[in-house]
Amino acid sequence: MTHQLPQGFQTAGVTCGIKESGKPDLAAFVSEVPAATAGVFAQNRVLGAPVLVSRERVPRSDCRAVIINSGNANACTGDSGLADARQMTEQLATQLECSGEQVLVCSTGIIGVPLPMDVITAGIPQAAAALADSPESLESAATAMMTTDTFAKFVSEEVELSSGSVRVTGAAKGAAMIAPNMATMLCVVMTDADLTAEQTDSLIRYGVDRTFNCISVDGHMSTSDSVILMANGTSGHSVDGSDEDLVRNAVQRICQKLATDIIRDAEGAAHFVTVDVQGFDTRETAFRIAKEIAESALVKTAICGNDPNWGRITSAAGYAGINFDVAHLSLTINDVEVYRAGTPVKYDEAALSEKMAQEDVHLLLELAGGPCSGSESVRFWTSDLTQEYVRLNSEYTT
Amino acid sequence: MTHQLPQGFQTAGVTCGIKESGKPDLAAFVSEVPAATAGVFAQNRVLGAPVLVSRERVPRSDCRAVIINSGNANACTGDSGLADARQMTEQLATQLECSGEQVLVCSTGIIGVPLPMDVITAGIPQAAAALADSPESLESAATAMMTTDTFAKFVSEEVELSSGSVRVTGAAKGAAMIAPNMATMLCVVMTDADLTAEQTDSLIRYGVDRTFNCISVDGHMSTSDSVILMANGTSGHSVDGSDEDLVRNAVQRICQKLATDIIRDAEGAAHFVTVDVQGFDTRETAFRIAKEIAESALVKTAICGNDPNWGRITSAAGYAGINFDVAHLSLTINDVEVYRAGTPVKYDEAALSEKMAQEDVHLLLELAGGPCSGSESVRFWTSDLTQEYVRLNSEYTT
Repeated sequence: MTHQLPQGFQTAGVTCGIKESGKPDLAAFVSEVPAATAGVFAQNRVLGAPVLVSRERVPRSDCRAVIINSGNANACTGDSGLADARQMTEQLATQLECSGEQVLVCSTGIIGVPLPMDVITAGIPQAAAALADSPESLESAATAMMTTDTFAKFVSEEVELSSGSVRVTGAAKGAAMIAPNMATMLCVVMTDADLTAEQTDSLIRYGVDRTFNCISVDGHMSTSDSVILMANGTSGHSVDGSDEDLVRNAVQRICQKLATDIIRDAEGAAHFVTVDVQGFDTRETAFRIAKEIAESALVKTAICGNDPNWGRITSAAGYAGINFDVAHLSLTINDVEVYRAGTPVKYDEAALSEKMAQEDVHLLLELAGGPCSGSESVRFWTSDLTQEYVRLNSEYTT
Repeated sequence: MTHQLPQGFQTAGVTCGIKESGKPDLAAFVSEVPAATAGVFAQNRVLGAPVLVSRERVPRSDCRAVIINSGNANACTGDSGLADARQMTEQLATQLECSGEQVLVCSTGIIGVPLPMDVITAGIPQAAAALADSPESLESAATAMMTTDTFAKFVSEEVELSSGSVRVTGAAKGAAMIAPNMATMLCVVMTDADLTAEQTDSLIRYGVDRTFNCISVDGHMSTSDSVILMANGTSGHSVDGSDEDLVRNAVQRICQKLATDIIRDAEGAAHFVTVDVQGFDTRETAFRIAKEIAESALVKTAICGNDPNWGRITSAAGYAGINFDVAHLSLTINDVEVYRAGTPVKYDEAALSEKMAQEDVHLLLELAGGPCSGSESVRFWTSDLTQEYVRLNSEYTT
């Protein structure tokens, strides 16, 4: 399947020389006309300079581009880091003949090292020259965002509105330092639908809340997360009423595909884990339990070993700070019920272990009554914790 | 150094047959006379049956004993698990000629499997027959509490009060599923000082708050944590005023030695990590930051690799939900300053990596002004995250 850019967008990915490996490290996403744009950013108190620069520029109705480098996060770099981030936007703005304020910036990679501005300054005109609206240019841009990712992540779909069709296309990166409220993940979603800045803001928050904020590799929130939605209106189709639902759902699907791709590509991971928590009084309550389960090192190592050691799952649920009654709690692993209403269920441990040896593991925790029960549910995605994850992450900089 | 029991206490550790390995698995801690006793227990909503039984029996002034089995946590075992836990206390009470209410119970090991009551029922009279007040019996009891521990953890000290000397002695187990608000760790502290039940309650809460609640191996809170303080008054020395401070400090030192022993023995750990967080407005604020740093998989894998990748430390501090200003934040690793007032410091990375290759790593995060700054500090202990931890924990039950 070929993934197309929406009308009026061009992208590029080039190698400017930030990475010692010589891999692509500079990406640009450009709208030919001013685009309504919003973003959602890391909640960390320690933020990368690009987040500080970009987040005060959105939502806005006249954004032209996002410039992204990989290989260096430009975080914990003090005032000179802020100046570097602003300079990157100015440099691309010069190429596009717009103002620096109309450009956003993202950086991902090592923290605490100044950006090599000489190679970036040389690279930005090179990226501008490479801009194209082809499927290959989308893949190039997605590739140039990668850090420890093993595959480029991009996806596109066409949405039929009452007035005609629009396209929604996204590209993302991320494989570790992934936690709710995002982590080192960057994502740009583009559409040629005609949205207001307020609509882009509401649509991207809705989508992120249900996708990028529901994934965790290691529970470590990054300094640099950014998800940006640009809508340039080039299709000529404005979006109201039920059409807005269609576009909102498309944005969510694009975000979900990219978020789950990040989990599929999680560093060292051998299993893709879906955690469903159902039957709670609020989404927030269910979310807190799902997150504790998904981030427990003991749950994740058990899944690594295809080990249906379900006490680790119920005990993780128990420390989420939610006042439920264990007598109403049940747990199912890959369709095998192991715990019902607070009591262990006899099951074939070897058979379940064999089912878990598939790549996909599904945990379903259900509350059926008592305090904090209700009809809300949350789906959360995570990876297992493997020796390979530890090997990769104990060898990062040295 | 020989570690003695306080006067009027006897302990035993025997092998009753819960563990397939044939290692000791049943321990008893007995006061010859009724003892003022208090306990602190896991905060998990999913609690082991022994915690449910024990915590409603304390504080009390006439406790006689604690019976502990390893190899099975008796957690998530429903109503029959509760009956089994009560039966264990009744069985030891029969041996001691007291009431079941005067006995506490702890269990540690796998979750969700019914206790093998036949072997426990046979083992309890055997443990009662083995009770002795020798240093060897203390070591036997500490050994019989162990699960994946590689060494028995016990310590004793003499405290000089104004009226004469008393002894404080503790034994503990734990090597994983260790997190604040305790984890699978069990600890019994005994003293022959003459304390009221209220004093035991206040002293043990003070001690636990600064020791067992400040350690984390994997952030996974157990169903079964219990720390119990028994004071039988056999020394004849009651404790008031400044003497109470002396005993409080001794209880804290005993707890700290045992808590840090748990971190030294953390599953698969290669480094012992002390996290000092200083200069915050409240202890709670400093604690939340220390905990996030200590539980970050990326911090722990960096330490495993002797990698001074300090951005992982500052970014973990940043997601603790504390509203500090990064411009006042500094970080020192093993006495080498790497980050001062929000800006990277040039340092010799290879030399620092070599220092980190020692077993002990010290992280010092300081806030020197701005919101949330003040004079409160917290010390937290953790281990690194190694491939060996993952190997051990992906092979637990299967």
